[in-house]
Amino acid sequence: MELWFTEKQTPNVGITCKITRTLHTETTPFQELAVIETLQFGRMLVLDGMVQTTVVDEFVYHEMIAHVALNTHPNPEKVMVIGGGDGGTIREIVKHPKVKKAVLVEIDERVIEVSKQYLPEIAVALMGNPKVEVRVEDGIKHVKEHKGEYDVIIIDSTEPVGPAVELFSEDFYKNVYESLKDDGIMVAQTESPFFNRDIIKNSFTRIGKNFPITRLYFATVPTYPSGVWTFTLGSKKYDPLAVKKEDIFVDPSNKYYNAEVHFGAFMLPNFIAEIIK
Amino acid sequence: MELWFTEKQTPNVGITCKITRTLHTETTPFQELAVIETLQFGRMLVLDGMVQTTVVDEFVYHEMIAHVALNTHPNPEKVMVIGGGDGGTIREIVKHPKVKKAVLVEIDERVIEVSKQYLPEIAVALMGNPKVEVRVEDGIKHVKEHKGEYDVIIIDSTEPVGPAVELFSEDFYKNVYESLKDDGIMVAQTESPFFNRDIIKNSFTRIGKNFPITRLYFATVPTYPSGVWTFTLGSKKYDPLAVKKEDIFVDPSNKYYNAEVHFGAFMLPNFIAEIIK
Repeated sequence: MELWFTEKQTPNVGITCKITRTLHTETTPFQELAVIETLQFGRMLVLDGMVQTTVVDEFVYHEMIAHVALNTHPNPEKVMVIGGGDGGTIREIVKHPKVKKAVLVEIDERVIEVSKQYLPEIAVALMGNPKVEVRVEDGIKHVKEHKGEYDVIIIDSTEPVGPAVELFSEDFYKNVYESLKDDGIMVAQTESPFFNRDIIKNSFTRIGKNFPITRLYFATVPTYPSGVWTFTLGSKKYDPLAVKKEDIFVDPSNKYYNAEVHFGAFMLPNFIAEIIK
Repeated sequence: MELWFTEKQTPNVGITCKITRTLHTETTPFQELAVIETLQFGRMLVLDGMVQTTVVDEFVYHEMIAHVALNTHPNPEKVMVIGGGDGGTIREIVKHPKVKKAVLVEIDERVIEVSKQYLPEIAVALMGNPKVEVRVEDGIKHVKEHKGEYDVIIIDSTEPVGPAVELFSEDFYKNVYESLKDDGIMVAQTESPFFNRDIIKNSFTRIGKNFPITRLYFATVPTYPSGVWTFTLGSKKYDPLAVKKEDIFVDPSNKYYNAEVHFGAFMLPNFIAEIIK
């Protein structure tokens, strides 16, 4: 018997993975949650039928959403992640020697619990790391209630469908701006330059209305639609391109991010650069 | 009725594309050849069940296999492509103002003819361009019979299965070396850093045995396995990283390659850099 999981990434293209079994499926108050065991990518977290992360390629997304901003800010002591209940982004954040506190604000407690159980190598920092605070609450509400508090905020959201739509809105970015300190930095995952050009364009414009420095960068994630992914960084003061190469912290365990990649990720192919012109 | 084409990119993962129809299928003396109409990627050329190129994303591969070497060589007058019967690489080569002659050496005439018929935007340079010479012959034989003749040789091969295996051999790279002039450059497509680490490692080592300068670079191609693709450049004299940014030629029609991407493509994520350590 062959079992295959197929995600229709758009109505017209999908990724299909051979699986050995489903480890977990449930319907939470927020979404349909599954962990499956794939042969190519190891264990895979799936929300509402969409691949969120896999053991084999998660390093790309998690390193790239975290380390670019952490190395742009000279002293990222207090960092917050909205979403990211699998813990991968938090795991990367606590690698950085200057981080004193990393707060995870995830709306769906079940994502956290299931990740701890089935994806411990990703969720490791959620299990007793003294720098980490896990809060099960709405990130939209959280930023409204915490003003001028964070050095770096990372928006590790799902696709802008259902509850995540507001995480791509101008109002939300304004509240993120206000939740940051005077020299704070935000990063958001902003989808595929092949399939979601409007999302990238809109996010970039909306973030740019709040932040004086707004920059788009990219990385390659095999299990994400089109395999190319973008991130948008908004900064009140520090420019990621003005960082000194010798100041960049690269943890020995990094598999993607290094001091060259920090800059190479901003060297955009024409078809990506054109989206934000 | 829904029609889907699925390529198993490895035994455990595939890409699946909704199609409207098959435009052409045939068995040539060399391979099974098909052109299908996909909704996501437009027309798609398929050889032995493997996606070779699509109208929507072909620009990445064709620009990146051609322009890096053409901009590294100060005077790439005579350029040869082995394989690449769809004509996309030749189309990019003849954009470069210093190219006087571009020779396509493709073993399977049917790939050329079918591409001209069904993929004219890709095969355009094969239809009467005065700089282009199309030769239906074995590239392995061709390089043995043409010594010291080319400024740049591009190996635009299929995967190293069947007849293409020899295009990844040390002997072949030696013959490519000898087919180049004293300051010549070669580039080969060398597969995915997620799925084909051995191919990359072996090609890099074998090319490095012949060429004093050997460098690996990467780009993102949605329809190729894992979405990340590598290219290996071997050079007798010129280093692609020593190129002056202001000397780089960027055609206005380019959708991927530009003077920043020229350098960014060599800024390798750790997991790729480690393959060739």
